[in-house]
Amino acid sequence: MYELLVIGGGPAGITAAATAINQRLETLIIAERWGGQTTYTMQLEDMEGREPITGEALLDAFRRQLDYLDFVRRFDTVTRVTPVEQHFEVETAQGDRFEGQALIIATGAKPQRLNVPGEMRLVGRGLSYSAASHASLFLGKNVAVVGNGRRAQWAAASLARKAHRVFLLAPEPLVTTPLAAKLRKTKNVEVIEGAKVREVLGDRFVEGIVAEMPDGEVREILVKGVFVKLARTPNSELVREWVDCDSRGHIIVDVHCATSWPGVFAAGDVTLVSEQVLLHIGDGAKAAISAYHYLLMR
Amino acid sequence: MYELLVIGGGPAGITAAATAINQRLETLIIAERWGGQTTYTMQLEDMEGREPITGEALLDAFRRQLDYLDFVRRFDTVTRVTPVEQHFEVETAQGDRFEGQALIIATGAKPQRLNVPGEMRLVGRGLSYSAASHASLFLGKNVAVVGNGRRAQWAAASLARKAHRVFLLAPEPLVTTPLAAKLRKTKNVEVIEGAKVREVLGDRFVEGIVAEMPDGEVREILVKGVFVKLARTPNSELVREWVDCDSRGHIIVDVHCATSWPGVFAAGDVTLVSEQVLLHIGDGAKAAISAYHYLLMR
Repeated sequence: MYELLVIGGGPAGITAAATAINQRLETLIIAERWGGQTTYTMQLEDMEGREPITGEALLDAFRRQLDYLDFVRRFDTVTRVTPVEQHFEVETAQGDRFEGQALIIATGAKPQRLNVPGEMRLVGRGLSYSAASHASLFLGKNVAVVGNGRRAQWAAASLARKAHRVFLLAPEPLVTTPLAAKLRKTKNVEVIEGAKVREVLGDRFVEGIVAEMPDGEVREILVKGVFVKLARTPNSELVREWVDCDSRGHIIVDVHCATSWPGVFAAGDVTLVSEQVLLHIGDGAKAAISAYHYLLMR
Repeated sequence: MYELLVIGGGPAGITAAATAINQRLETLIIAERWGGQTTYTMQLEDMEGREPITGEALLDAFRRQLDYLDFVRRFDTVTRVTPVEQHFEVETAQGDRFEGQALIIATGAKPQRLNVPGEMRLVGRGLSYSAASHASLFLGKNVAVVGNGRRAQWAAASLARKAHRVFLLAPEPLVTTPLAAKLRKTKNVEVIEGAKVREVLGDRFVEGIVAEMPDGEVREILVKGVFVKLARTPNSELVREWVDCDSRGHIIVDVHCATSWPGVFAAGDVTLVSEQVLLHIGDGAKAAISAYHYLLMR
């Protein structure tokens, strides 16, 4: 039996596993692949090279450590997690079964894609899923935000301070929040409710977005950036039946990354936290230290 | 008026300020000096060079950025913080006065020193204030932990898994906790209550500790490591009158590093968090993002 099983290979999972191993915990990290990296990078027409990701060097070092100690990592898909008396059983798609005394869930969230032409070609080339990471790169430019919920509203408000003009393309009416009311009054923000995105334009970099307006008109809007902020789905299915989650499926954690179930900790996008790499790194380390304290007490 | 004032120059404050500046917030960081670094490094007899601090390269980069944008930092001592209607006033020892719409408190904690011969000479040379950072360096060695509270107990329990033998020198009886009961039964832990440390021995590196036993006998214990885990005092005086703190003076924060007072956020050792650099970096970034969200809503 392992002392700690970490599920998920993004920044939070990688940091949690490396921190646990450095505390000499018998740890196994199970991930489909090392991830959480590609969607964070960004390259723009007027930039030399790509924008470095803060914390990337750290994650690289952790990843190399986990690859070097290859017995601590397993590339596989976890299909089932079962709490059994004082420990947990984890089953994988390849038919393996692992036992752990404590568990860190860092399975991330599925971003909802636009699923329109141009999107996949332009990810990291003007198209972003994280305003917290990339808004500052669009100083004085025109940008579009796609979404109608809180995260889309935060992204639009943040971009309104930096970009020249922000088009908030909301497929549905904006979710009612104080920030929504504020955005409607913000000069350089144009809120278009009921807009359907049809295409992202651009050869090497984003040059515009094509959307069908509520009145049926198809409009081409020239923008250098597109921020896709549609509802994400936290990957909490494995534990949702027995660990407390909020109405949208985020695992609820306390300030120490502990969940409602003793011995289960969570970090990163599967919890409700801003999608910034440093936060995920910090919470990954925090979850590992909390799991360690839990194990010391057993 | 600044949008954000950050008080404190350790890992949490440095990261908070850099994150805020990268979000284009008008930020000022006020610190006595850049700090939080020296007490983390460790060099031992059998190590080549010193143990690198995880996250140190990141902090160096942030520090350089703040030094380069020198108008964002001020080396001074904050003497008073006053909430004024919708903002905060900060006064310094040099007689300056700054105003900010939001505030991040990252003022750290005063570690209580042993104040015995050898302590200052051997800091970072076998003597540590952080078990989370350094316990793993003492695999199979003998170590002493000085303290009687929860943090000393965690340190002893953590070291018991790695070190050969752990001497827990408690100046007062152990605070009653489930962990204390467990430690008394742990084979390689010797709990000595009422022990008074007189000296830390060692020329270049820690070689032992001299303590007066409860019966008056002065005993020399050979150890390669000394972990000082006496009660720390969180530096929360500036806000303690109007921001909720726990009974020991730690600022109470929620999962977003928000305190009880709107617009005031806190991160690092002034809150109740394990003393690991990565956690402080993560919470510093988190406090900055939360302050940013707060400012976007104003």
